[in-house]
Amino acid sequence: MCRWLAYRGSPVLIEDALYAPAHSLIDQSLHSRLGAETTNGDGFGIGWYDAESTPGVFRSIEPAWNDQNLHELAGHVRSHLFFAHIRAAIGSAVQQTNCHPFRHGRWLFMHNGFIDAFATFKRELVLAVDASLYPEIKGQTDTEVLFYLALTFGLADDPPDAVARAIGLVEACGHQRGVKHPFQGTIATSDGERLWAFRYSSEGRSRSLFFSRDIRTLRALYPEREVLQQLSDDARLVLSEPIGDLPGAWNEVPEGSYGVTGKGDDQLRPFRAKPPTKAAAVHA
Amino acid sequence: MCRWLAYRGSPVLIEDALYAPAHSLIDQSLHSRLGAETTNGDGFGIGWYDAESTPGVFRSIEPAWNDQNLHELAGHVRSHLFFAHIRAAIGSAVQQTNCHPFRHGRWLFMHNGFIDAFATFKRELVLAVDASLYPEIKGQTDTEVLFYLALTFGLADDPPDAVARAIGLVEACGHQRGVKHPFQGTIATSDGERLWAFRYSSEGRSRSLFFSRDIRTLRALYPEREVLQQLSDDARLVLSEPIGDLPGAWNEVPEGSYGVTGKGDDQLRPFRAKPPTKAAAVHA
Amino acid sequence: MCRWLAYRGSPVLIEDALYAPAHSLIDQSLHSRLGAETTNGDGFGIGWYDAESTPGVFRSIEPAWNDQNLHELAGHVRSHLFFAHIRAAIGSAVQQTNCHPFRHGRWLFMHNGFIDAFATFKRELVLAVDASLYPEIKGQTDTEVLFYLALTFGLADDPPDAVARAIGLVEACGHQRGVKHPFQGTIATSDGERLWAFRYSSEGRSRSLFFSRDIRTLRALYPEREVLQQLSDDARLVLSEPIGDLPGAWNEVPEGSYGVTGKGDDQLRPFRAKPPTKAAAVHA
Amino acid sequence: MCRWLAYRGSPVLIEDALYAPAHSLIDQSLHSRLGAETTNGDGFGIGWYDAESTPGVFRSIEPAWNDQNLHELAGHVRSHLFFAHIRAAIGSAVQQTNCHPFRHGRWLFMHNGFIDAFATFKRELVLAVDASLYPEIKGQTDTEVLFYLALTFGLADDPPDAVARAIGLVEACGHQRGVKHPFQGTIATSDGERLWAFRYSSEGRSRSLFFSRDIRTLRALYPEREVLQQLSDDARLVLSEPIGDLPGAWNEVPEGSYGVTGKGDDQLRPFRAKPPTKAAAVHA
Repeated sequence: MCRWLAYRGSPVLIEDALYAPAHSLIDQSLHSRLGAETTNGDGFGIGWYDAESTPGVFRSIEPAWNDQNLHELAGHVRSHLFFAHIRAAIGSAVQQTNCHPFRHGRWLFMHNGFIDAFATFKRELVLAVDASLYPEIKGQTDTEVLFYLALTFGLADDPPDAVARAIGLVEACGHQRGVKHPFQGTIATSDGERLWAFRYSSEGRSRSLFFSRDIRTLRALYPEREVLQQLSDDARLVLSEPIGDLPGAWNEVPEGSYGVTGKGDDQLRPFRAKPPTKAAAVHA
Repeated sequence: MCRWLAYRGSPVLIEDALYAPAHSLIDQSLHSRLGAETTNGDGFGIGWYDAESTPGVFRSIEPAWNDQNLHELAGHVRSHLFFAHIRAAIGSAVQQTNCHPFRHGRWLFMHNGFIDAFATFKRELVLAVDASLYPEIKGQTDTEVLFYLALTFGLADDPPDAVARAIGLVEACGHQRGVKHPFQGTIATSDGERLWAFRYSSEGRSRSLFFSRDIRTLRALYPEREVLQQLSDDARLVLSEPIGDLPGAWNEVPEGSYGVTGKGDDQLRPFRAKPPTKAAAVHA
Repeated sequence: MCRWLAYRGSPVLIEDALYAPAHSLIDQSLHSRLGAETTNGDGFGIGWYDAESTPGVFRSIEPAWNDQNLHELAGHVRSHLFFAHIRAAIGSAVQQTNCHPFRHGRWLFMHNGFIDAFATFKRELVLAVDASLYPEIKGQTDTEVLFYLALTFGLADDPPDAVARAIGLVEACGHQRGVKHPFQGTIATSDGERLWAFRYSSEGRSRSLFFSRDIRTLRALYPEREVLQQLSDDARLVLSEPIGDLPGAWNEVPEGSYGVTGKGDDQLRPFRAKPPTKAAAVHA
Repeated sequence: MCRWLAYRGSPVLIEDALYAPAHSLIDQSLHSRLGAETTNGDGFGIGWYDAESTPGVFRSIEPAWNDQNLHELAGHVRSHLFFAHIRAAIGSAVQQTNCHPFRHGRWLFMHNGFIDAFATFKRELVLAVDASLYPEIKGQTDTEVLFYLALTFGLADDPPDAVARAIGLVEACGHQRGVKHPFQGTIATSDGERLWAFRYSSEGRSRSLFFSRDIRTLRALYPEREVLQQLSDDARLVLSEPIGDLPGAWNEVPEGSYGVTGKGDDQLRPFRAKPPTKAAAVHA
């Protein structure tokens, strides 16, 4: 329902990643090719890490394509790790507290997809959020609840395990309500050092997710693109829909898998939701 | 905290009640005299009944004093029963879903005041909301939760009883957490025919609440005010702070009481919160 | 660049015209078929006549498809003559003062199209606006300047003549600057009694414009549509793109013509821009 | 009408200047002590210089005191020279294009005050703006017109002379219309290296303006304030109303004078408006 982009590498001006390329994310806010919706005009958000103790977050309810403040900010903020998200709302209000990315301490979290029939079992999911975290839920979205479930299940210690358990609980609650395919989507999360990206759906037909190929390959292929020359060797762009028109620049993240990048740790691994254990189910 | 106004009587242009008088509600959004805050600039809302099946609601996050759309709407909508509310946010975001009045079916609800230490026991309160109503909570405010508690406790059948039980639960949960005076405020609610207004606080020192005196008295006192000549005999204005400068025009609602007006039923009665019975406490 | 709709007839709920039909104007805000842009998400506006002395205007910078206040207003306001406009901005800021319809006294004015290379001769055009009207220009758009030119040239007395002279000045100033086809578009204007709609472009290839066929024909053709049974015999819908899927329901306004409806005066006539006379050019 | 603050010195987090001190600018947006209005809730803006070719500008129509994005930005952007402005609108719409600071190339410009009876001679003033600059005027405010007049009169070459001539033209046009005291206010402008601040009014009773005393004095006086230890020797804060409660920290800019700071050039000089020469008057 949305489009997103995440970057990790040597610091770049956010504008270079958001506005510059052909079919940029901002262009996708008006004319997405691969998205479930072609227009993603129901607000947007960016989150970026810098020298401060928590990442900055800028969110707006205006369409990204015409937001002057986003353009200003993107043209003045450099970051080594940032998220950008454009939203196509389905059901919940267009308000800043419903815009991605969501933040908790050093963690950012964003999502393209949905929890099917969310309203029918939102209450169970919210109840499973740790009571100390509960007051921090500010908006109405399925994604924010998923984020707080992942935090409850240990996101800070083991992100893939926590996300798997959060989605596992969503699936368990959904199935109990007769929802066939409770979860759909791609997720990005980060602590400012590493970046995790997930592609998973209960149905096994997840929304698209891509990551940029090895930067050295890109440099060899496109020696005239100056911006690629300046990037660090480990720079990565992860996104829901390719930007630019470089053949061979993008790899698709396979169905049911996740990737991690950062701190010399680049991996692509299988991903499955983890159903709640009996104890956890009682707790919920 | 906030300022509010409710009107019931023969249909009037909303503008006449909101903008026209000296020290009008719109003026109070900039310069309140009696409010806990002098500025109420964190959004506003109006709700009005007409021939349609549910009341209309217009809410905005801009300060009321400069909102062009509010001015337009108020200058074109006539209603026999309407609410207006200007907000001074304390903690929750400035977004439309946090603006009063709240609506459910034919019911409107608004509040000036707060639930003390709300974040620390919001979860218990939300859990006590009927599961079928839970998905309709759209914002983050204490007032919206209170409204859904009142709906859970039978607002549609017996408003004073439902509000008393809702506040009673708030007090019980708050006291359990060591909060000395959990509830504070004045509340207005309506089904489009009758209008109820409550003044109550756990501490026994509630925010101010006034209602207009008998309209025939007003007419006799102020024969030159044309607008008063046109009003029906049973017209009433209820509000958190007097508007206009008519001596003798306003009666104060006494501490710990509620008033009802409409359908020939004008009463002023004592009001006390009702603590939850043991069964209700278990349910929560 | 935009889409618009104008209605005149027996009073209807604005919602019925804006939201109800298949491919409604609100739907067109996301997915226009005939527009130069498929998305019209840069604000919107409605203007409506009622018993008050001037028409009401409600304008917002949010996309129409998700604007809760528009939905509320449209569901509660009935009018015998109203305008609705959804905007796709080209160059000027997304702000309420740039949203159509524009209002002056009892007059409303809206436009789909543009003045080509407007920035290069905006100054000349603004200078030609009557000095007493000049301070009322609030926004930056070409349309608002065109409206004030038409007012300067006597819109209140002879709308077709005033619009022809306004566009004539635009063409004269544009040609002087080497702009080949200075004006493009369709325009609606009203004084609350009659409704004028223009289709004209310097190039002779104007944006589309349609009006509903005779209401009696519609009733005979579609006896099952209850809403058509209630409309007055002279009800008309004029719009930039057909809504609904009734074959034979719409007539296209021919290139270079205008229509007027209201007060028993239904006409369709040729329209040509009127170049400024020498005296007027000196005045400018 | 408004409140503003300008900083030049070693790079600091904008938050430290905007939020940290007692009676900060953000606090003044709700409760100004010296301003003509006590509430400045009609939008705000910040402008900052960094390594990019033009300064960044962030403007919003929400009250500053509750704007989450302003808080985020201020907590993440460091700058050696920045402007902040909170607005109390008088007449013109609350929209981003009316928020200060205004920007042209490397220049920022902001103002607390007004042009009296502006609407009656706005047309003459706008006509005096260089035709090549005219299309860049985006909003409706007197300040933006003043800025473009100053640019027309050579702001980039000699700021005090250009501002004096701009105000001189305002006074000449105003007096022609019978306006007794056409100009009132304090102004800040910068090219990113030096910062100019003006205090002037036609009446000779200008709004207040203060600048921080020598930083070495401040350090000696307040050794416990860590933030003062880190500032460069030439750091200066200029503002319309003192923040913080340091006795002796602030000097008042005298009536009818301007100050400049930056590039080793700290001066305080008399300032008078310069009436237009006959030739200039003809041009206008």
